[in-house]
Amino acid sequence: MIAQCWREEIAPLDASAAAAARERIDALTKPVGSLGRIEELAVQLCAIAGGVPTHAYERRAILIGAGDHGVAEDGVSAYPSEVTAQMVGGFVAGTAAINAFARAVRADVYVANFGVKTPLPPHPRLLDVLCGYATANLARRAAIPRGDLGYVLAAGIAAFDEIAERAPFDVLALGDMGIANTTSAAAIVAAFTGAPAETVVGRGTGIDDARLARKIAVVKRALARIEDVSAPRPGTVRSTPQRTRGADVWEQIASEVGGYEIVGLAGVILTAARARIPVVLDGYIVAAAALIAGAIAPHALGYCIAAHRSREPGHALALDALGLRPLLDLDLALGEASGAALALPLIEAAARMVREMRTFAEAGVATKEDAR
Amino acid sequence: MIAQCWREEIAPLDASAAAAARERIDALTKPVGSLGRIEELAVQLCAIAGGVPTHAYERRAILIGAGDHGVAEDGVSAYPSEVTAQMVGGFVAGTAAINAFARAVRADVYVANFGVKTPLPPHPRLLDVLCGYATANLARRAAIPRGDLGYVLAAGIAAFDEIAERAPFDVLALGDMGIANTTSAAAIVAAFTGAPAETVVGRGTGIDDARLARKIAVVKRALARIEDVSAPRPGTVRSTPQRTRGADVWEQIASEVGGYEIVGLAGVILTAARARIPVVLDGYIVAAAALIAGAIAPHALGYCIAAHRSREPGHALALDALGLRPLLDLDLALGEASGAALALPLIEAAARMVREMRTFAEAGVATKEDAR
Repeated sequence: MIAQCWREEIAPLDASAAAAARERIDALTKPVGSLGRIEELAVQLCAIAGGVPTHAYERRAILIGAGDHGVAEDGVSAYPSEVTAQMVGGFVAGTAAINAFARAVRADVYVANFGVKTPLPPHPRLLDVLCGYATANLARRAAIPRGDLGYVLAAGIAAFDEIAERAPFDVLALGDMGIANTTSAAAIVAAFTGAPAETVVGRGTGIDDARLARKIAVVKRALARIEDVSAPRPGTVRSTPQRTRGADVWEQIASEVGGYEIVGLAGVILTAARARIPVVLDGYIVAAAALIAGAIAPHALGYCIAAHRSREPGHALALDALGLRPLLDLDLALGEASGAALALPLIEAAARMVREMRTFAEAGVATKEDAR
Repeated sequence: MIAQCWREEIAPLDASAAAAARERIDALTKPVGSLGRIEELAVQLCAIAGGVPTHAYERRAILIGAGDHGVAEDGVSAYPSEVTAQMVGGFVAGTAAINAFARAVRADVYVANFGVKTPLPPHPRLLDVLCGYATANLARRAAIPRGDLGYVLAAGIAAFDEIAERAPFDVLALGDMGIANTTSAAAIVAAFTGAPAETVVGRGTGIDDARLARKIAVVKRALARIEDVSAPRPGTVRSTPQRTRGADVWEQIASEVGGYEIVGLAGVILTAARARIPVVLDGYIVAAAALIAGAIAPHALGYCIAAHRSREPGHALALDALGLRPLLDLDLALGEASGAALALPLIEAAARMVREMRTFAEAGVATKEDAR
């Protein structure tokens, strides 16, 4: 099926291109290692591109996966489900935070409607890849019928292909919109890592203590339906999902506690990796999508760049499980790809560094040895 | 004298503009506080501008202050003094790290020659504000004659005015180039904060243990000449310089252990603050310049934005003393304004957020209360 194809079609990163990049970067006119994380990023870009990139990642797309969650009816969010559609309206109208940020970093914004409850009027920036009008309530039953998962992943392929057709891009930033989707993300992260519900559930849009307690209870109840995580031991966090779980455990997790936008974004990540396009991950929800993508095809994670560490407490846990280190730490907790957008200039800077800087030899600058 | 004028002419930040900005940001279509550090940055920009900025800080100048240090002869750096002039050659030719980064963030790069040892050929990007061909060796005597300090600060004014004349800018990023200048910066930070030499001296361009020990000894010897810090007690760090030291202690510190580019950059910071232009500080050396600027005119620090926390261990200490929290933490240790450049898109994002986002009322989006 679809997952098997991805496992076969997503290439591992190019290790020899990475080694050559490391060597070139060490010869550039700067002390070895002095550009820290930007150097690591440049090496990753070279490993993805199979050599020094031929461009500076100036063609940028931002894709926001949108979907509603049945569990919103249990009062786990500070906002009603209707806000998902209203915020999507803002994204396509250009009035939201992500639009301001996208203009700051010169990127195009698209929204993929994977599962918004309210029917949305057509808009050139809105991709209709609808899989359902909100998931079922994960507190009570499977959020997505297991048989639909292939369709939802394929909706991710469709979203990727559609924006690529409108305007080619060299890098893709992913974000999310969906009232109550931190509840789904928390359950996904707990299921993949074995972390207790209390450590993965946060305040999302800013809920009070009563809602927080309800959200934790909901996540616990949902996790009880997933084999092997029904009795998580506090303090034990499993390492990367693909090593600790059977190949198709992702299906159970995605079906029981997933979201249309989360599974759809997993499909987008896998499609981007197959196309060797770097994928910039926003916050907690996109990290949950990456856990699913990584369980389907582990090599896909090599194409992922973690933009930032959000305020949501489970995010750091999810990034650890993904083996990714965030670039930024700006105390963000919004979603919408806001953090991912802010990381895009760092990618251009890393690419230009390895492409455009001269080596000591090329520039005729004295090296360390000359000081001895 | 010049310092007194600055104290009078640099206005405090506009507190009512800051309060109005805070109120507007809380009404925008996002959970309150969900954009974290970007919200703080937007409030600061409004406080500097005296209201919501009328632009998005797209006109950007990067100024690198360059100078040589007599103390380089004592082997405190891994590179010879000649590298300063060679690197400046790279900056104006466009082949260095800062040029790659500047292209990534659409900024103009200028170099102010405050004190490079080697005579430099004229270049349109090079500002001739020479104060001397390298400072005296601070390990043995005052680095800059006290009577010259006013001239060096005025060279900072000249550098600011000259780049403003070439192309107007809305934000100014500052960086440095000068072999051995982390030795001078370390001594300045120790003198202002009272921190022991061991805590402010780092490996700079990547020196070995022997050079590190020499560098610490040099800083200790220099500090012994400065009253009141000759016997620093480990663990005691004084708070902001202006509160703990007499108004003109900066003169003694700048003269004994300063650098032409460091004092010159202090002059640039003060000039930018007087013009109400936000100043983005790069790493350790520019932080040392800001300590001098803050000692001359405390209000100047309100116009400063700390771009990043560098790998140099004393930098965090200096930022604490300045009361500034860095935006980025990318493990950089280069200088050249490399970190400051990378922060410029965040400033545009913050400005666009407060300028361009709609409020809940304007956008017709349901608020938290609707969920109750």
